[in-house]
Amino acid sequence: MAKAKALVLERQHELRLRDIELPSEIGPGEVKIRLHTVGVCGSDVHYYTHGRIGPFVVEQPMVLGHEAAGTIIEVGEGVRHLKVGDRVCMEPGIPDPGSKASRIGMYNVDPAVRFWATPPVHGVLTPFVVHAANYTFKLPDNVSFAEGAMVEPFAVGMQAAAKARIVPGDTAVVIGAGPIGTMVAIAALAGGCARAIVADLAQPKLDIAVGYQGIIPVNVREKSLADEVRQVTNGWGADVIFECSGSPRAWQSIMELPRPGGAIVVVGLPVEPIAFDVATMSTKELRVESVFRYAHQYERAIALMGSGKVDLKPLISATLPFAESIAAFDRAVEARPSDVKIQIRMPD
Amino acid sequence: MAKAKALVLERQHELRLRDIELPSEIGPGEVKIRLHTVGVCGSDVHYYTHGRIGPFVVEQPMVLGHEAAGTIIEVGEGVRHLKVGDRVCMEPGIPDPGSKASRIGMYNVDPAVRFWATPPVHGVLTPFVVHAANYTFKLPDNVSFAEGAMVEPFAVGMQAAAKARIVPGDTAVVIGAGPIGTMVAIAALAGGCARAIVADLAQPKLDIAVGYQGIIPVNVREKSLADEVRQVTNGWGADVIFECSGSPRAWQSIMELPRPGGAIVVVGLPVEPIAFDVATMSTKELRVESVFRYAHQYERAIALMGSGKVDLKPLISATLPFAESIAAFDRAVEARPSDVKIQIRMPD
Amino acid sequence: MAKAKALVLERQHELRLRDIELPSEIGPGEVKIRLHTVGVCGSDVHYYTHGRIGPFVVEQPMVLGHEAAGTIIEVGEGVRHLKVGDRVCMEPGIPDPGSKASRIGMYNVDPAVRFWATPPVHGVLTPFVVHAANYTFKLPDNVSFAEGAMVEPFAVGMQAAAKARIVPGDTAVVIGAGPIGTMVAIAALAGGCARAIVADLAQPKLDIAVGYQGIIPVNVREKSLADEVRQVTNGWGADVIFECSGSPRAWQSIMELPRPGGAIVVVGLPVEPIAFDVATMSTKELRVESVFRYAHQYERAIALMGSGKVDLKPLISATLPFAESIAAFDRAVEARPSDVKIQIRMPD
Amino acid sequence: MAKAKALVLERQHELRLRDIELPSEIGPGEVKIRLHTVGVCGSDVHYYTHGRIGPFVVEQPMVLGHEAAGTIIEVGEGVRHLKVGDRVCMEPGIPDPGSKASRIGMYNVDPAVRFWATPPVHGVLTPFVVHAANYTFKLPDNVSFAEGAMVEPFAVGMQAAAKARIVPGDTAVVIGAGPIGTMVAIAALAGGCARAIVADLAQPKLDIAVGYQGIIPVNVREKSLADEVRQVTNGWGADVIFECSGSPRAWQSIMELPRPGGAIVVVGLPVEPIAFDVATMSTKELRVESVFRYAHQYERAIALMGSGKVDLKPLISATLPFAESIAAFDRAVEARPSDVKIQIRMPD
Repeated sequence: MAKAKALVLERQHELRLRDIELPSEIGPGEVKIRLHTVGVCGSDVHYYTHGRIGPFVVEQPMVLGHEAAGTIIEVGEGVRHLKVGDRVCMEPGIPDPGSKASRIGMYNVDPAVRFWATPPVHGVLTPFVVHAANYTFKLPDNVSFAEGAMVEPFAVGMQAAAKARIVPGDTAVVIGAGPIGTMVAIAALAGGCARAIVADLAQPKLDIAVGYQGIIPVNVREKSLADEVRQVTNGWGADVIFECSGSPRAWQSIMELPRPGGAIVVVGLPVEPIAFDVATMSTKELRVESVFRYAHQYERAIALMGSGKVDLKPLISATLPFAESIAAFDRAVEARPSDVKIQIRMPD
Repeated sequence: MAKAKALVLERQHELRLRDIELPSEIGPGEVKIRLHTVGVCGSDVHYYTHGRIGPFVVEQPMVLGHEAAGTIIEVGEGVRHLKVGDRVCMEPGIPDPGSKASRIGMYNVDPAVRFWATPPVHGVLTPFVVHAANYTFKLPDNVSFAEGAMVEPFAVGMQAAAKARIVPGDTAVVIGAGPIGTMVAIAALAGGCARAIVADLAQPKLDIAVGYQGIIPVNVREKSLADEVRQVTNGWGADVIFECSGSPRAWQSIMELPRPGGAIVVVGLPVEPIAFDVATMSTKELRVESVFRYAHQYERAIALMGSGKVDLKPLISATLPFAESIAAFDRAVEARPSDVKIQIRMPD
Repeated sequence: MAKAKALVLERQHELRLRDIELPSEIGPGEVKIRLHTVGVCGSDVHYYTHGRIGPFVVEQPMVLGHEAAGTIIEVGEGVRHLKVGDRVCMEPGIPDPGSKASRIGMYNVDPAVRFWATPPVHGVLTPFVVHAANYTFKLPDNVSFAEGAMVEPFAVGMQAAAKARIVPGDTAVVIGAGPIGTMVAIAALAGGCARAIVADLAQPKLDIAVGYQGIIPVNVREKSLADEVRQVTNGWGADVIFECSGSPRAWQSIMELPRPGGAIVVVGLPVEPIAFDVATMSTKELRVESVFRYAHQYERAIALMGSGKVDLKPLISATLPFAESIAAFDRAVEARPSDVKIQIRMPD
Repeated sequence: MAKAKALVLERQHELRLRDIELPSEIGPGEVKIRLHTVGVCGSDVHYYTHGRIGPFVVEQPMVLGHEAAGTIIEVGEGVRHLKVGDRVCMEPGIPDPGSKASRIGMYNVDPAVRFWATPPVHGVLTPFVVHAANYTFKLPDNVSFAEGAMVEPFAVGMQAAAKARIVPGDTAVVIGAGPIGTMVAIAALAGGCARAIVADLAQPKLDIAVGYQGIIPVNVREKSLADEVRQVTNGWGADVIFECSGSPRAWQSIMELPRPGGAIVVVGLPVEPIAFDVATMSTKELRVESVFRYAHQYERAIALMGSGKVDLKPLISATLPFAESIAAFDRAVEARPSDVKIQIRMPD
């Protein structure tokens, strides 16, 4: 353990940039990373504003931040794929490799996962962190640290795209153009969809999404999503619907959107049970999939970014220095429709 | 067209055994069948008691019956796989082969399907019927007409088992031990599950189901289904849950039952939208599948019956002669818990 | 039937542009199309140079050409999705919709398929053709006739990409950069791969392929493909290998290329059985898939082209007028490494 | 380490029952097991007769045996699902849980797997063994030790059945009715196939297989396998072919057997590359899968045996006491056609 400066959530509503004791010893299979860029995620903000997410309650001071990229500065015993100086990004969750979920390849649903900035585990808005090498990934030269810190939210989109089992040339619908909906749309297009009809109420969000080729924006204040889907698909329906709004209202008419045999992937999480139209689902023999974070998506995401197929830079709305972390969070709390991602630049 | 005696649903609540004009000309690709056995299905009964099922309304007299087996007595031009004298059973629904759904192999969801005993299409409680040869299937010598008339409801179970994507040795849960739940449990076991935990409130239904090897009955009046699943699976959860009760209550706690990455197959159709726990579904990354009738299941079902892996005879609770058809329906209306299937024996 | 001018393969080695009797009556479910552009395919050329492909032998004069786009000039009874004036492209093969293969959705392997320019069925290097509306597809305004005539060969790539079951972000290897290999690489990238390592001996072919983002060219005269795969994938191996060369030599070391659990998709067809290393395949638990033409790919291909994700124009090497059809074929026979696709422009 | 009596393969052709130093300390996550029954596997016999299997060479004395069941006599720290006195069977291979293959759930292809009785790792023909608890599985009360020791070879069949992606009611062909072929046929039937056409040259092997319901034996000295498949499937072909003979001759005509879109699962390993008919494979759009040992199959296998769906007792041909281990191996070397599995009973 060593003292380090960090952005600490003392309790609900109270952030401080102060020294705190954090782990600093590096064991076998681990690496130490100097952080370069850390993104502000909706869940970080939610802990700040609500002090909890479902069963996870902030009961003691916790460092925030889990979307991160940096540079390897120390390498533990047995680590072979990384060396000092490598530019990397990191998965924030470390599972128990011996758990049953991990052994079948679904480490993301292992209840023993220790996830950065999820109580009681500290996050990485601090200059250095020790991490498992297996969950630390080298960035290609043409992927910047800022983009590296975008891999985490993009991995959620990748997980959704993987679960959809896209067949090349599919037509997708993405309900909700917030940061996650936008990531999902980009991942669906990179993952084989010909086009993604993206629906939202907020025009500034759609204006950002439409910068990506293949996205067809629908402002649902002005146009019926179901009509748009019918028109684009000649009345057949979309192959896959990504529900990213978490709004119970989205579920009222969602079954109209897919084609017979199509799929719905649930990404947005409504707090309460939603009203689910089993009869229409069955008439079309639909499939519903769900995602929980991601597993095995970092290398895939990085490959897409490295090959130039995916460019996430347009989604970085603002970058603030570490010293202004609290301001960065307060801006994130505002949730300006034109803000997709706010990042914090750590000191060199 | 020709006059034939038939069991006619004149309108809601009114059945008559009387002469009616029915198609009798055989075209290319068609066969004429002398019916031997016709089962009474819940949907036949529902038209009798309610006069409608959802959008399908009995507006003119309609012959009932769609679970049928018989003998080929005439073969149309171009039919090669059948000949006069063949013992057969028939799929009751004929799709448009040129529809988009049919072309991708999902003919069951083709909205143009013409399905026996679904208004305005007549059923087969009548001595003869003309049918598409492609939807008429030869029975092996060791499968009786009575069993042949069970293929239709069993095909629903087969469709559910196929949608589950069972991995050999899976553990299934079947909620609801009515005729369809029992068929689903048998299909799931024949289809690769090691065991099927079958839950119901009615002990007589469980007593019938338990005759099949691999079925673990749970009377939910006496025992918690979730506890039983935990015990059988050492706390991991079942691989697949078949919801066959159609009860909104079943959905309240269904998400507890599957393992992480498991599946729920919806077979029972609640009339109203149900309350669906998206959050728990996502935490476990579950998949939900649905079925609508069946496609490509008859030959599979017949193969399982012919090889001796599936014996449906214990589910035939009573057989009445055609002359007593109305009595057969009235007994079906009673819905005795110990009755699974009532069949009607057509005149020789 | 009516007389029409056509490019007729009289017998092996002998092409003539002359009048021939061709079907001209339009039936229900059919459309008549005025052809605009027809591509020259390797199989057309092979009938010209060899007089046969496997069991298909040119025994009487046959019109060549099956990669086609044009304009609807007449619409048969019951056709709803097309109207006179629509710009369209066509699938060249019409299956029997009642065959078992068609009914399960695999109409491409129906032995009864009638395929343009496959003996004894005439092709479409002629001004007009009558075709099944179900296999005729409207082109979006931003897809030209020339691109429409590229849909056929691209559909082969799409079929290969679909069979691969790409997971978004996969790394592909494509062996062989001829027209089909290039189509496969483009389809694999559009279908979700992050990158496609394309291997060939001919540098001009690689120079064309490399114009597509995500393609990593490997001239196997200069570099080891296996080394390149190891380097790109950090020693893990590629997710999917598309064998498009048809060369027995490619099979000698192909098992080195995939990752454990990876796939090989066979696109190139060696005439003789190849030597297949079962032991290495098993050590890695590989999967091998194969393709035969395509099924259900036209709409997907057109959607990708319409959304701007796929641009096939750079692959059109030359366009000759119908009057110079024989010259076009003779140039195709030359097989210049820098020629990908030669097209023929039909008279207005 | 401690001295223990064991069946030691000193070198090719030389077995001794003698004392040897073996690991005896139990660490966290481990259990100690008193062995009860150990089966003799073809690979044990092959090391005895050939001194090697492919790259694995017996260079120092090695204890044989890896198909084992026994009783827990000591439990290491952190082990929760097992306790002293539990009757168990064990997976013989322990992977590196941090390897990439293990993390995606394919631990069987992890090159770092340490597998009993595979040089230089000792097997378990010795009274006690220390093993990883995660690879040790509790037997239900109704599964005997002898059956428990059959789980290992049955797991190979289960892996093959899982890779086939059986759809309930499929028709299988199994080429080769040796111990593995028989296990595969039983697993395919338990895993959802309606019937398995099992082909061999040796009638005694077929006579054993035919005791299982759903198996259709074909003595290929007397009957054509292709004819039988055509007859059983009405000319359509089988859904899945399991090649278990390892014979190059089997590959000569294997492509005739599957239906369009069917699958071949490679289980038998020919030493040399085989001649593989790519053209016929492609015409039918076949899929070829392969297996390497098994992953995640033990619990599935045990569930099928515990529920009564699978009975492997008829395959145990003889049981010899530990003192007669060498005689047991010599009998296994004889390879009598009527011997499926020889087991060794360890001292109490």
